[in-house]
Amino acid sequence: MFDFRPIFFVVGLLLTTLAVAMCAPLVVDAAAGHDEWRVFAGSAALTAFIGVTMILTTRSTTRRINIRQAFILTTGSWLVLTTFSALPFAFSGLGLSFTDSFFEAMSGVTTTGSTVISGLDAAPGGILLWRALLQWLGGIGIIVMAIAILPMLKIGGMQLFRMESSDHSEKVMPRVTQVASGIGFVYLALTAICAVALWAVGFDGFDAVAHAMTTIATGGFSTSDGSIAGFDNPAAELIVTLFMIVGGLPFVLYLQAVRGEPGALLRDSQVRCFLIIVIVCIAVLGIWHHLATGAPLGQSYREVAFNVVSIITGTGFSSADYGRWGAFAVGVFFFLMFVGGCAGSTTCGIKVFRFQVLYATALAQIHRLVQPHGVFVPHFNKHPITEEIASSVMGFFFLFVITFAAIALALGAIGLDFITAVSGAATAICNVGPALGEIIGPSGNFAALPDAAKWVLSFGMLLGRLELFTVMVMLAPSFWRG
Amino acid sequence: MFDFRPIFFVVGLLLTTLAVAMCAPLVVDAAAGHDEWRVFAGSAALTAFIGVTMILTTRSTTRRINIRQAFILTTGSWLVLTTFSALPFAFSGLGLSFTDSFFEAMSGVTTTGSTVISGLDAAPGGILLWRALLQWLGGIGIIVMAIAILPMLKIGGMQLFRMESSDHSEKVMPRVTQVASGIGFVYLALTAICAVALWAVGFDGFDAVAHAMTTIATGGFSTSDGSIAGFDNPAAELIVTLFMIVGGLPFVLYLQAVRGEPGALLRDSQVRCFLIIVIVCIAVLGIWHHLATGAPLGQSYREVAFNVVSIITGTGFSSADYGRWGAFAVGVFFFLMFVGGCAGSTTCGIKVFRFQVLYATALAQIHRLVQPHGVFVPHFNKHPITEEIASSVMGFFFLFVITFAAIALALGAIGLDFITAVSGAATAICNVGPALGEIIGPSGNFAALPDAAKWVLSFGMLLGRLELFTVMVMLAPSFWRG
Repeated sequence: MFDFRPIFFVVGLLLTTLAVAMCAPLVVDAAAGHDEWRVFAGSAALTAFIGVTMILTTRSTTRRINIRQAFILTTGSWLVLTTFSALPFAFSGLGLSFTDSFFEAMSGVTTTGSTVISGLDAAPGGILLWRALLQWLGGIGIIVMAIAILPMLKIGGMQLFRMESSDHSEKVMPRVTQVASGIGFVYLALTAICAVALWAVGFDGFDAVAHAMTTIATGGFSTSDGSIAGFDNPAAELIVTLFMIVGGLPFVLYLQAVRGEPGALLRDSQVRCFLIIVIVCIAVLGIWHHLATGAPLGQSYREVAFNVVSIITGTGFSSADYGRWGAFAVGVFFFLMFVGGCAGSTTCGIKVFRFQVLYATALAQIHRLVQPHGVFVPHFNKHPITEEIASSVMGFFFLFVITFAAIALALGAIGLDFITAVSGAATAICNVGPALGEIIGPSGNFAALPDAAKWVLSFGMLLGRLELFTVMVMLAPSFWRG
Repeated sequence: MFDFRPIFFVVGLLLTTLAVAMCAPLVVDAAAGHDEWRVFAGSAALTAFIGVTMILTTRSTTRRINIRQAFILTTGSWLVLTTFSALPFAFSGLGLSFTDSFFEAMSGVTTTGSTVISGLDAAPGGILLWRALLQWLGGIGIIVMAIAILPMLKIGGMQLFRMESSDHSEKVMPRVTQVASGIGFVYLALTAICAVALWAVGFDGFDAVAHAMTTIATGGFSTSDGSIAGFDNPAAELIVTLFMIVGGLPFVLYLQAVRGEPGALLRDSQVRCFLIIVIVCIAVLGIWHHLATGAPLGQSYREVAFNVVSIITGTGFSSADYGRWGAFAVGVFFFLMFVGGCAGSTTCGIKVFRFQVLYATALAQIHRLVQPHGVFVPHFNKHPITEEIASSVMGFFFLFVITFAAIALALGAIGLDFITAVSGAATAICNVGPALGEIIGPSGNFAALPDAAKWVLSFGMLLGRLELFTVMVMLAPSFWRG
């Protein structure tokens, strides 16, 4: 039998933290005189009660967990936290069903940004803050998971980023918890800078904070139905573009920068590759947009830069309906969804380092075909790629494509049209936000989908966020044996 | 410097064979009193002249070729033969441009089956026979290439099928040429059986032969604009369904069957997996079709069986417009394009054995995640999958997906809509035939596409047919050095 007690203990701690987080929208609504503060009070009380009970009943157990418990803890805590995060939506005056509430919460904590809510501009501040907070907490949760848990679980090549195995072990960062708290500080500081910048260009304090939170988390929830486009503020779009890029880079490198090694950021091959992809896509699509829509070149580049960064980082803010830019642009956006940002950032998708590993491996293979007796070792970030890592990354890529296809087919079986099904599957598994087509494209809303589709998409978001393997190992019968 | 002479010699032989093949439609048109026989006479004379010249000027060279020459020979001969095969189309009374003629020829020799010609029912017999012959010759060319050349070049895991490396070397089939001629005989015999069967259920002799040729080659060119649906003959549909499956299995196993080992066919794990996929898809889609269209269950299964087999084998005959069966069916057909048949058959796509290798490897990885100290060796057809083969297959899968995306983007840049671009890229690289959407779907025609799109699609067909690597190695600068 498994010992679930250490898992319950950690989940209890996380639930209690979530209950504390619910107090922020509570205060906002109470201060504004909205009755909705009761919703948060009730949700916080229930969440805290369950959380504290779990802590108290399991506090005497060991703190060490084995690898199976780590898998269950990761998936389980994400599911439990999402369920409790959905309570304020379900109890609120928005009239959301539990399905819609769960979908909105899952879209929040996974930093996806797909929404079923419309009428945001008139909604009480508490619920808007709660959506922003979910993404913000989800974002830091993901970074910590990518640093502390995934490398240990050896998921999809993430062992490349294991700290112990660093060749030049500088002993500057001895323990994972210390790194995690350092990153938490950086995360908070970057959010504050972004909020101040948005406030400086004309956002009111609330909108500035809410958008800063969902920008740095590359989440994409907005306080307006029109997303960023609704504010019609080019300076703010520029700031958001920059901070989406900030959110797409590995946070551990910011920590190194703060500790006196700013060059590490630009020497990192994943960061370089990510920036090159972004710049090339903006350069090409800018010309395309100019020619296709007849807009002035400056405006073309402004709109393209915002939306390319928004999609590749999986943020999902929209400043324009790129569905109207012609099939080439739509195709680029579709495939960019899958690229994602860097490992150790708040982004999702396949991630840049995996494409680098796959490309290096394929290139080595091509050389080996021509010179069968030559020795060609693929490299990543100046280190040789071991067979174990190569096959780990390739296995991830294969499973990602198959899972995408399976989700798209499930959505088709539920009755969605081809473009909605295919792009909906992509936007869910890559945690982007908007998809393509009339229904769930950049100017659409997920509320119109049938309930079954919302559950499938929620599951897709979770799978993508937890890098597939974390969830899928639990489907193997051998996981539950001895 | 490369020694191109042995390459020229082989290409000369192949061209001369092609010239001989052109005499068949010549005779058909001459017998029918069509003036088009002159087109074939001219094309044959030109092709034979070039071919014989190439043979004569290079006949004194060595017959041994090295690995680089093998790569150039494979891609080069396919390109040269396609160009000469296009001559009858270009010179004919159909009024095709050279782009259209090249596209039609490439679609023929790669056994894709996409067509730019309409008015087939009224076309002279010669040109119809030429289209069927191209696919038939392409089909046997592919099988021989898969047996004799790709395993030597170690492309995408094809080394699994190297004859020398067979564990139980039975010495029954000592040399590749002997196997190739044996398979040629089987291919001819199966075509004859299929033709007789079609004739027996009411096809006239010409249509029976033409369709038998394009069925066994899983090509999909028809003598009617309405494809098989135009004949409205359920018995013929059943026969074609069966022989498309026959074309999708490894031909080397038929040879073993003829030589007294019929059980080998059903013991082969690739064959079993292929048949299971086909049966499951038919079973599920049959119910779906019945519920979605309200057709009687028998008719649903008949239509579904035909179209599933036609798409998974990449034949591309259509008996109905599956674009009208709802998004789930469209999605299944889209993803089935990529599956393809067995290695060593006339089909294209990623192929079943690669999915088996990828699945076995991913499963071993999942087990390894849970039990980091366990030893899990993936197997294919009861043999362990080596690291080299696993990474070879994974590299193929990655390149296939990337190439598909690149072709889709190129088609989008040319101006095709999203569905046409994405499904057109898939149908080209997988050598299927029809795509999705109004323009090039099962009831559409490729003639309406811009010329640039036809060239991109032709290149895609070639890439898919030659398993990507064969073409791509030549793009590596190191290929041309030293």
